Amino acid sequence: MEVTQILHMNKGEGETSYAKNCTVQREIITLANSIMEEAVAESVQNTLPQSMGIADLGCSSGPNTLMAVSKIIDTVCKTSSGIVGSTLPELRVSLNDLPGNDFNEVFMSFPGFYETLRKEKGNGPEGGFVSGIPGSFYGRLFARNSMHFVHSSSTLHWLSQVPPSLDMNKGKIYISKTSPPCVVKAYVSQFEKDFFLFLRSRAHEMVAGGRMLLSFMGHISPEASTEVGSHQWELLAQLLLGLIEEDRIDSFNAPYYAPSPQEVRNVIVEEGSFSINHVEAFEVNWDEGSSACSDSACDKCDFEHEKLSRGQRVAITIRAVVESMVESHFGREILDELFRRYGELVDDYFSKTVAKHINLVVSVTRNSE
Amino acid sequence: MEVTQILHMNKGEGETSYAKNCTVQREIITLANSIMEEAVAESVQNTLPQSMGIADLGCSSGPNTLMAVSKIIDTVCKTSSGIVGSTLPELRVSLNDLPGNDFNEVFMSFPGFYETLRKEKGNGPEGGFVSGIPGSFYGRLFARNSMHFVHSSSTLHWLSQVPPSLDMNKGKIYISKTSPPCVVKAYVSQFEKDFFLFLRSRAHEMVAGGRMLLSFMGHISPEASTEVGSHQWELLAQLLLGLIEEDRIDSFNAPYYAPSPQEVRNVIVEEGSFSINHVEAFEVNWDEGSSACSDSACDKCDFEHEKLSRGQRVAITIRAVVESMVESHFGREILDELFRRYGELVDDYFSKTVAKHINLVVSVTRNSE
Repeated sequence: MEVTQILHMNKGEGETSYAKNCTVQREIITLANSIMEEAVAESVQNTLPQSMGIADLGCSSGPNTLMAVSKIIDTVCKTSSGIVGSTLPELRVSLNDLPGNDFNEVFMSFPGFYETLRKEKGNGPEGGFVSGIPGSFYGRLFARNSMHFVHSSSTLHWLSQVPPSLDMNKGKIYISKTSPPCVVKAYVSQFEKDFFLFLRSRAHEMVAGGRMLLSFMGHISPEASTEVGSHQWELLAQLLLGLIEEDRIDSFNAPYYAPSPQEVRNVIVEEGSFSINHVEAFEVNWDEGSSACSDSACDKCDFEHEKLSRGQRVAITIRAVVESMVESHFGREILDELFRRYGELVDDYFSKTVAKHINLVVSVTRNSE
Repeated sequence: MEVTQILHMNKGEGETSYAKNCTVQREIITLANSIMEEAVAESVQNTLPQSMGIADLGCSSGPNTLMAVSKIIDTVCKTSSGIVGSTLPELRVSLNDLPGNDFNEVFMSFPGFYETLRKEKGNGPEGGFVSGIPGSFYGRLFARNSMHFVHSSSTLHWLSQVPPSLDMNKGKIYISKTSPPCVVKAYVSQFEKDFFLFLRSRAHEMVAGGRMLLSFMGHISPEASTEVGSHQWELLAQLLLGLIEEDRIDSFNAPYYAPSPQEVRNVIVEEGSFSINHVEAFEVNWDEGSSACSDSACDKCDFEHEKLSRGQRVAITIRAVVESMVESHFGREILDELFRRYGELVDDYFSKTVAKHINLVVSVTRNSE
């Protein structure tokens, strides 16, 4: 599977679109708010830029896309106004995602975004420029020494490719309790390679003193397979076995890895261009940010979503993210049934346990050369 | 009519898409080839950039989108290799169009474009970066002093808005022989205002010695209304009168002006940031670059287009460009009939005359401040 050609959040604004089903990812951005504010402020104080490069990597399309960027700009404005003799720098904002992302949708919201910038920040049309950069962040995206603050949320758990040599992972699509050690090793090794390449690419692009805030799925138990987060893949595998011949499932594995804080630290230290400010782990409910509406006659819920069960809401959120991959391997026709059953299974799972992910928030500073 | 919200070339790859109907615009790019080569080479020689900003404004989507950029990169490579001690600069390529442009289509072609760059130019993944910049070029798009070569083809005849005070232009949608002088004046004045703003915006963005190549529709007769180019709007108005109530046509006017070389020179001199290298006028056939296939049993033509009459081919080319505007004012339902009749009218017109546009090619250098 060519991840860079296939992986994209569900496009458009329909019921299973990512735009309508990204409340968990929004909560994750919010979770890192105070660490982000600190990091943005320090990037301004460290570098005192006249022209400031800001990037959001894996911006997707939907209500979250400009949320992190708006927050970043807010903090740049506040910080600049607090530095004696400093004026608001020219802002160069780059939104990156894979070429299959719905950039048309993102771009249609720019005029409104500029309008807000002008009204709220008094930032004239010559003060900020937003661009779209299609491409994989596991490689170079920007010019040398052009970036001062880089943000990426809910993205780096996606690998550049499915790890090679997963033949032994029978009937599974990610690390599971029954996966042999070589499967775990293959995943860890792919993550290390990808994350190293990510850091090395950003190292070329960022100025000394520039800051980067990364937030992605992780695990904190000694073994990745025992983490609650991996159960979502386990459930998907279980359902696929009821819908698809087993050998087709054997050839499908998720291009995903949720690393431990230590694995993340190791790669940062080994790559050597960045100093670590924070590596923190947070718990996030599977259905964080999407509250159920208990009143079946409620007329405030303008979107059917609000009337779904918790399991159905988790299913639709997962579908918005993984559909492009599942569809490309197994075909379109199984999708509705697969995610209907997925909702039921998650409801059942919720009745037995409080299902949570682990989300890592990583903040680093670009060293001087 | 909000031009920036509505105007876009027809999206996708269907029969009436711009991607399938842009051979005239391709010929226009080709026409300016030698002037472009000279301008690109001089921009490199003048500025000797380590990191070179290149922009294509109004890039649209389709086979032409990366054509001009490829040509520009070719010339940068050739020129750099001819300068002693010079290496190929890092290339920052910006593709701009209005937010309604089909950027998704454009971005899907980037991986192939990068592949070609690597293979043909030995330009590694760290050597070139392409981004999409949605927004009107009648305003700032890029950071200060960041651009070395700016290109824009078949674009600047589109105004930022329909000129105000066109109430006197009854039954017409552009300057025509029966238009009173105030209508001509309103169009000229809107062009002057827009072109001034265009130049002033680019002046902030371009480095001293940077070059700009612009190519757009113009007129060389003493009066714009007698130019063959304006007949295309005349024919459209004539057909609309047969399909739509006259008062709805009175309220529609094209946000378009094809200026004379002197009008262009005047604005460049008045704005004052650029020196003129060339202002040249070329004749372009209405159906330039789209050769008819006379063999009805031909199996080489994989696209129905090839089997159309000359008039039908002109009609489909015009439709790909103006449909978004006509549809937003008059509705979708008249489109097929309107452009069918348009084809017939053009065939009739071709039988009487050799129909040509005038295309202006303008090349300027950014002055030192």
